[in-house]
Amino acid sequence: MDFFPAALEALIDQFARLPGVGRKSAQRLAFYVMDLPETEATAFAEAILAARQTVHVCPQCQNLTDAELCSICRSSRRDPSTVCVVADPKDVIAMERAREFHGHYHVLHGVLSPMSHVGPDDLRITELTHRVAQGEIQEIIMATNPDAEGETTAMYIARLLKPFGVRVTRLAYGVPVGGNLEYADDATLLRALEGRREI
Amino acid sequence: MDFFPAALEALIDQFARLPGVGRKSAQRLAFYVMDLPETEATAFAEAILAARQTVHVCPQCQNLTDAELCSICRSSRRDPSTVCVVADPKDVIAMERAREFHGHYHVLHGVLSPMSHVGPDDLRITELTHRVAQGEIQEIIMATNPDAEGETTAMYIARLLKPFGVRVTRLAYGVPVGGNLEYADDATLLRALEGRREI
Repeated sequence: MDFFPAALEALIDQFARLPGVGRKSAQRLAFYVMDLPETEATAFAEAILAARQTVHVCPQCQNLTDAELCSICRSSRRDPSTVCVVADPKDVIAMERAREFHGHYHVLHGVLSPMSHVGPDDLRITELTHRVAQGEIQEIIMATNPDAEGETTAMYIARLLKPFGVRVTRLAYGVPVGGNLEYADDATLLRALEGRREI
Repeated sequence: MDFFPAALEALIDQFARLPGVGRKSAQRLAFYVMDLPETEATAFAEAILAARQTVHVCPQCQNLTDAELCSICRSSRRDPSTVCVVADPKDVIAMERAREFHGHYHVLHGVLSPMSHVGPDDLRITELTHRVAQGEIQEIIMATNPDAEGETTAMYIARLLKPFGVRVTRLAYGVPVGGNLEYADDATLLRALEGRREI
C-alpha cells in the first residue's frame, strides 16, 4: 500500500520512530520538510548532525554540554560541596529557573524502572559514587521526581551513599505554591500535613 | 534562560518549527535524537536530505515521485481521459485505497484559501488547464475535500475549465458508509437527501 516515493516513505518512517509521533503525524511532518526550501531542509539535517557531534555529557556532572566541562561545574561561583541529583538534563533547567540552588548537579539520565528494564547500571550512578568518594561533597540533595520510580531511585542512591558518611536529603513534599487545596490529591495533602512547620 | 548547549538548542528550534510541535515536544524529540546511536541519528539526517533531493513532482500530474514520470502517469493500464483532481498527494493514496478509480490524477498542492493567502497562482492550476487544453481529457472529477475551501476550489476550477468543453464532476456527498444517521450533521443529511437514488 506504499504509493509515496521510497525516499519519502523512508523519511516518514524516520519521523514515525520519534516518541509520540504516529503514522499520520509522521506523514504531516515529512510533507512539511518536503515543502521547505532546500536550504532549510539542509539546515534541519545539519542541526541533527551538529547536535549529535558537538554535544556530549560533562565528565563530572553528566549534564549535556558542548564544552570540556559544563558551565556550572566550571563556575567559581557555585558551591561544589552540595550536589543536587536529578533524573534528566531538563530537570537541571527547572531547578536553575528557581534561582535558589547554587551548588553542583549530577544527572542520572533516567530513574530505576524494573518495568522498563532500567537498572542501576543504566544510570550514571557509578559516576556519582566516584564523585562522593573524593570526599569534597558534604550534601547530596535527591531531586528525582516525586513519583514511585523517582522515590525508589532516591532511596536506592541514599542507601548506596550511606557508607561514605555524606548527608543525603530529599526535596520537600507538599501542596504546590499557588495551588488549590481542593484539587490536591490525598497523598500530597498527607505529605503536606506530615511536613508541616511552625510559623 | 538557555541552559542547553547551543547545538542542542538549535536542534530543539528545528523541531519546534514543525507543524503541531510545541516547545516541550520539540525538547522531547531533540533528546530522543541525542540518545540515538550515532549511526541512527546520521540515518535520520540523511533521510531528510535524500527525500528532498530525490523526490520531486511529476511534470504531468504534479504528484510526488522519484521517477521522471510518476508510476500512475506511466502506467498503460490507467485511462488518461479521466482525471481526478485532488488537493494533496495524501488524497491520491486515499483514492487509490478505494481501488475504484482507474484514471489519472492531478494534484493541486493545496486549496484556495483567502484567509491563508492562498490564491490560484499558488496551486498547480495552470498545469491542469494545460493538460485539459491538449484535448485528450474528457472528464475532470473534482475530489477536493467537502469543506468550504475544497468546495470553492472545485467551483473555481470548474468555471475555469468550462470554455474547454470538458465535463467537470464532483464527488457525491452523503452519509458515510458504516456511519450512523444519528451522528450525521444536518448539512450532510441534507446533501444525502438531495442526492437520493432509486433502488
